[in-house]
Amino acid sequence: MKLKDFAREIGLSPTTVSRALSGYPEVSASTRTRVMEEAARLGYRPNINAVRLATGRAGAIGVVMTRAGDYQFSEFISGMADRLSSEDTDILITPMIGHDPGDELQLYRRLAESRRLDAVVIHSPMPNDPRIALLERLKLPFIVHGRSVTDVPHAWLDIDNEGAIRQSTEHLINLGHRRITLLNGREGLTFTLDRLKGYRQALDDRGIPFDPKLVIHGDFTDEIGFRFACSALKQRPQPTAFVAGSMMTALGIYRAARSMNLVIGRDVSIVAHDDVFPYLTAENMVPPLSTTRSSIRAAGKRIADLLLQILAGQQARDIQELWPVELILRETSRPAPEKASA
Amino acid sequence: MKLKDFAREIGLSPTTVSRALSGYPEVSASTRTRVMEEAARLGYRPNINAVRLATGRAGAIGVVMTRAGDYQFSEFISGMADRLSSEDTDILITPMIGHDPGDELQLYRRLAESRRLDAVVIHSPMPNDPRIALLERLKLPFIVHGRSVTDVPHAWLDIDNEGAIRQSTEHLINLGHRRITLLNGREGLTFTLDRLKGYRQALDDRGIPFDPKLVIHGDFTDEIGFRFACSALKQRPQPTAFVAGSMMTALGIYRAARSMNLVIGRDVSIVAHDDVFPYLTAENMVPPLSTTRSSIRAAGKRIADLLLQILAGQQARDIQELWPVELILRETSRPAPEKASA
Repeated sequence: MKLKDFAREIGLSPTTVSRALSGYPEVSASTRTRVMEEAARLGYRPNINAVRLATGRAGAIGVVMTRAGDYQFSEFISGMADRLSSEDTDILITPMIGHDPGDELQLYRRLAESRRLDAVVIHSPMPNDPRIALLERLKLPFIVHGRSVTDVPHAWLDIDNEGAIRQSTEHLINLGHRRITLLNGREGLTFTLDRLKGYRQALDDRGIPFDPKLVIHGDFTDEIGFRFACSALKQRPQPTAFVAGSMMTALGIYRAARSMNLVIGRDVSIVAHDDVFPYLTAENMVPPLSTTRSSIRAAGKRIADLLLQILAGQQARDIQELWPVELILRETSRPAPEKASA
Repeated sequence: MKLKDFAREIGLSPTTVSRALSGYPEVSASTRTRVMEEAARLGYRPNINAVRLATGRAGAIGVVMTRAGDYQFSEFISGMADRLSSEDTDILITPMIGHDPGDELQLYRRLAESRRLDAVVIHSPMPNDPRIALLERLKLPFIVHGRSVTDVPHAWLDIDNEGAIRQSTEHLINLGHRRITLLNGREGLTFTLDRLKGYRQALDDRGIPFDPKLVIHGDFTDEIGFRFACSALKQRPQPTAFVAGSMMTALGIYRAARSMNLVIGRDVSIVAHDDVFPYLTAENMVPPLSTTRSSIRAAGKRIADLLLQILAGQQARDIQELWPVELILRETSRPAPEKASA
């Protein structure tokens, strides 16, 4: 059955029917309910293109993929997919692996004019991220996952990276640790700068001098965790604690400690940030890992939800969500060994 | 600059220019080179829609996402993205989480008529998968990642799951193990059936009776690996070896063994299947893990490549790739302990 036939059958305009089925706010709840019941009764399934023509929507949210192998990607997309599964809205991934950052800007210009998507999600922002100013100018709706530092008002959702790492570091200081290493993210990104800020703040508050040798930047892999932990544990005085950027880096630290016959929770303490992966859990590690926790899937779900709100007319500049992060103490953060804290 | 202006400028038809820039085989290599050089010289970037109108392509490959939190997803998509980054082709993810399998079939019908994508990838096939017959009937080009069992000729790419698990099991039998557990995938899927076949074949060849208590089905998570290993290791006689479905289940087995004070590579042997994750490597585990290895990213890349070939005119039914799997021996597969092998 065609849209116009169905609409005539139930005595409404095709536009109203399309909007009702797409969840537009301009349509009353009672009309929507009626349209959905009639559609079920008459076996009407709208043609995707007809709906999109009537609503003026492309029915897709875009994500530009500039890096391969990001371990957070599937969880974030799972969260978006979870929210969008009942919305007739797809996720359009535009691959740009191995391109220059300038190409990404050029791509947004082309995407904006293509009308193949209604909005985009910006990942891994840096301070004064040029993508934000550009998208604002292009009038392509967007939300930033993370934060930039910019005068351009825009929608963003971030976790409190600074607070999370400050809490972890303070907790370790309270346990008597003084040489605490930080496995931070890639240099130049806002979240990396925020985490460093939180770490330094906790040290400053307790008068512990900052030692740049105790900080490394890089991707969150067990390989980097393992290598850095091995080299850090060869320093004298030996560090007694690690603040790890992710579960993956924590796995590397566990292995490094074991390979040097150090006992985690006695010789070496660890607090890691946990994005909550369904396939790898902090509670199950041996010993169970103390973490700051914030679900990346929940962030993906909420970001999809906020974009739908923006598309329904909500002011993007009013959307600024900073999610607090919980510190969950398990068995890897314990008092510093005597010799080090003395 | 518009397509028609650029085409006039260099004395070619707009259709030829679009096809040259989209890599169509009908355009000669010399024409393509010339068009690309002129485009670079004149600073011409084609409008995406103009190209698509001229070529009749949507410029997207579809993936329907029916499950959240699949740990292989980002690696597979990374591989596709790697191949498609220079092809002006997007990946369109249609979320269908929590829907019935019948809804997925309905969705393919709608996608086929929407012309929003040029081809789709089918994941997690089962024998006589109804999606294959449907897509063939709809004339929507597709490739199956994995294998079904069906009379409908179609394109597929799979790894040799049966051979991989047979090899792992044989290797453990050769080391004197007799009670070998298998952590298999979800029931009903072809790859799960193939792995079970490989396991049983190896046992049969050596006259070892099959014990269903030694096989579990489920998702590949460390939680399931941990729980199953704990319960398996309480059986008497105790199993001495595990064939694990993924790196994640292997992590769970390591933890279970440690929590019971069993030494991996002495009391308990493990061989796992490794999809080659950038953030978690078999070599780095303590002790380093014996694996059958096949990169899921390489599979994603090749699948994107094969779909481009199909779109360029290659017969889909001629594309049937079975990838062999390498067994890499490290330190977790060792002779069975005396008491068990005696």
